[in-house]
Amino acid sequence: MEVDIQLVPSPPDPDTLLDRTVVVIDVLRATSVMVQAMSQGALEIIPVATVEEAFQTAKTFPQSSLILGGERGSKKIPGFDLGNSPREYVAERVKGKKLILTTTNGTKAFHVVSSGREILVGSFFNIEVTAQRCLELNRDLLIFPSGDEGKFSLEDTICGGMLIDLIMKKGGKRIDLSDASRCAQILYKKFKDNLSEALHLSHHGKKLVNRGFVEDLGYCAQTDMTDIVPEFKAGVIRVPLTPSLSPGETVSQ
Amino acid sequence: MEVDIQLVPSPPDPDTLLDRTVVVIDVLRATSVMVQAMSQGALEIIPVATVEEAFQTAKTFPQSSLILGGERGSKKIPGFDLGNSPREYVAERVKGKKLILTTTNGTKAFHVVSSGREILVGSFFNIEVTAQRCLELNRDLLIFPSGDEGKFSLEDTICGGMLIDLIMKKGGKRIDLSDASRCAQILYKKFKDNLSEALHLSHHGKKLVNRGFVEDLGYCAQTDMTDIVPEFKAGVIRVPLTPSLSPGETVSQ
Repeated sequence: MEVDIQLVPSPPDPDTLLDRTVVVIDVLRATSVMVQAMSQGALEIIPVATVEEAFQTAKTFPQSSLILGGERGSKKIPGFDLGNSPREYVAERVKGKKLILTTTNGTKAFHVVSSGREILVGSFFNIEVTAQRCLELNRDLLIFPSGDEGKFSLEDTICGGMLIDLIMKKGGKRIDLSDASRCAQILYKKFKDNLSEALHLSHHGKKLVNRGFVEDLGYCAQTDMTDIVPEFKAGVIRVPLTPSLSPGETVSQ
Repeated sequence: MEVDIQLVPSPPDPDTLLDRTVVVIDVLRATSVMVQAMSQGALEIIPVATVEEAFQTAKTFPQSSLILGGERGSKKIPGFDLGNSPREYVAERVKGKKLILTTTNGTKAFHVVSSGREILVGSFFNIEVTAQRCLELNRDLLIFPSGDEGKFSLEDTICGGMLIDLIMKKGGKRIDLSDASRCAQILYKKFKDNLSEALHLSHHGKKLVNRGFVEDLGYCAQTDMTDIVPEFKAGVIRVPLTPSLSPGETVSQ
């Protein structure tokens, strides 16, 4: 099982993803929001690239079933219900709802890797169970940090490095790391005792602090808050009820 | 002074390089060959992308003044004088000669960053003096590891990380690191006491060992073998005799 990580979020060749599991990570804050919202009972999430697309998509569903969420310049978009802070996505707001989400980096990333065999939503919140799911699927893996406006992202790569470290510990010798995966694992080990510090050190983290979202950094650095692994399929993110596994395999969620 | 490193060798926007110093690094083995050849007295190096271009370029110069060097699949190209092992580039072969060089990753990289204000040739062989030169030039810096067939390269990024670490130590507070630079510096510190081990661990290093070039790994991991910093300008690599510095600055070469 080969484990690779794309350190810079340039679009991969779609054909190389057909037989791979892909894990999309945007710690600050899109995939943290997604995992949080689904763990609080949101029914499904439609990630869209633009604000216009969000409003257009919203027109096709009954308004009472919908939540519009996301950010531009880190801030809530005019006319939207929620911003991009996972702390906003509590059961009282999202339970039983369909969430349409648009963010600067994270929601676009899902469309860039849409040819992946499975596309999982990763974050620190569900890191252990995501590692478990990757091992159950047992396919070559591409971890896709969604980056910081097209550039390398420290916090996403550290989260990817933690995923790699867990997969190595659980998977043993059958795991084959690329140079990039080795780099991410080393980076994670450097910060593993203080993930929140790493988020404060990162370019995107500093930007969020300046814009008044300092509390999101510590919040998004929390590990293993839930045991769900949402999947992106045909444009929609859901928590699969019966993940398709080989006979005899078990699912931890 | 901003210091950034491009972790994956995708072409940068040429306009962003106009005011920047760029350092190209291909430890295994193109920039190691270049620095070695020039330290052994080669007059100049013309890096070209293809084998055909090498033969075409060779026709435009008197044969006695030329050396053709490089590799495909790590091996010497039929009809060429030398391969891509720096150990071959001794004074007896290269002194006073013009070298036409083509390699899989490294020689292409120079053309990808050709809009840079200065384009320096970096390697472990000349790492300290390259750091010094970057500080003298005092411009925003992009370190450009030439990568491993389009992918992240462990050994090039570690060499970039060492350059960043030296620049930080010498430059102090005026140095502003990107997330990617911070990552490369952490990676370097992990391996700083055994650079040769890192080269053996890397994907490209393993390929070279399998192809019979194990000795090149330890050789290319040697630091500070020379005090030259070759520059790429208008298609040609030379060691500048009088680097253009601001008044009052001094040059260590």
